Amino acid sequence: MPQIDFWYEFASTYSYPAAMRIEAAAKARGVEVRWRPFLLGPIFFDQGWRDSPFNIYPAKGRYMWRDLERICAALDLPFARPDPFPQNGLTAARLALALDEARRPAFTRAVYAAQFGERRQIAEQETLAAILAALQLDPDAHFARASSDDIKARLKEQTDEAKRVGIFGAPAFVAAGGELFWGNDRLEAALDWAAKRG
Amino acid sequence: MPQIDFWYEFASTYSYPAAMRIEAAAKARGVEVRWRPFLLGPIFFDQGWRDSPFNIYPAKGRYMWRDLERICAALDLPFARPDPFPQNGLTAARLALALDEARRPAFTRAVYAAQFGERRQIAEQETLAAILAALQLDPDAHFARASSDDIKARLKEQTDEAKRVGIFGAPAFVAAGGELFWGNDRLEAALDWAAKRG
Repeated sequence: MPQIDFWYEFASTYSYPAAMRIEAAAKARGVEVRWRPFLLGPIFFDQGWRDSPFNIYPAKGRYMWRDLERICAALDLPFARPDPFPQNGLTAARLALALDEARRPAFTRAVYAAQFGERRQIAEQETLAAILAALQLDPDAHFARASSDDIKARLKEQTDEAKRVGIFGAPAFVAAGGELFWGNDRLEAALDWAAKRG
Repeated sequence: MPQIDFWYEFASTYSYPAAMRIEAAAKARGVEVRWRPFLLGPIFFDQGWRDSPFNIYPAKGRYMWRDLERICAALDLPFARPDPFPQNGLTAARLALALDEARRPAFTRAVYAAQFGERRQIAEQETLAAILAALQLDPDAHFARASSDDIKARLKEQTDEAKRVGIFGAPAFVAAGGELFWGNDRLEAALDWAAKRG
């Protein structure tokens, strides 16, 4: 079965619609999705950015919020602009990585829905604990695992790998042979590529 | 008839596929296109950039060239990466603005095709003269008009207006009510918006 790597950062705005629709779109094409959380912060840092480019470049930021609102309306996804933006997605990313691959997608979608659909604070342990509990996952056990040295090191490796394969923003999709696609609006092209070329 | 403003900069890579396909896509939806050349340079300058962001951020630049190659292949458009990049599109923009609106689309497409399809130097008068001549337009008369104070001032006004309506990159599409769409990949959404909301 052809595979695609779905690289996402929890604070990334356009990763929200991508996360909500990738499973159905991939299934329709017979493509298997590997969910790969990573951190954009270190990659932006290398580009000289100490904040989201949507905050650094206000015209681009204003446009992005309007564009995202339109995209969510077209997909019938709830939308509420997070405040503050960007949210710190470090703990969410560690939790996602600590989960086994079968549980990662549902947790990931729940975090995006909380952040961009309900304006909840995903940097707060309380928010994440409620999400875990709703998924029948024990919050304490998962927080403990997420803060282990093993998971910290694995998230760092993920981010290093993202950089190595040429990722500079999120969401990103990588098909066989390292073919890279960037952005929610490239989801279909990426999946078509994967379906055709394995 | 609903209208859309198509804002383009001659050096802009993604403006190439947009320019080549907007007329058919707009016609299919009963939307009239106003072709509006402008300069990104002054807008990028305000954002602190003294070069194309695709040169300033190499990972983004590498991705863009590959992405553009894929897009052109899917559209059956010839593609040849310009060298140097970005090309100086000032004279081309002045010429486009100096032409009447009926002739501007064909000239614009010819400049993009020369630059991104045949790797010709659009900053050179020779290239532009050949394009004008192929369109049965007298090169000398058009160069004279393009370098007039009137046209210089009009191009500056276009660029000021682009900034005022929130444009930060090209191509951009503006529908009634100032609704802004950015990028070749938003062409259909922009035209659908214009067709539905006038």
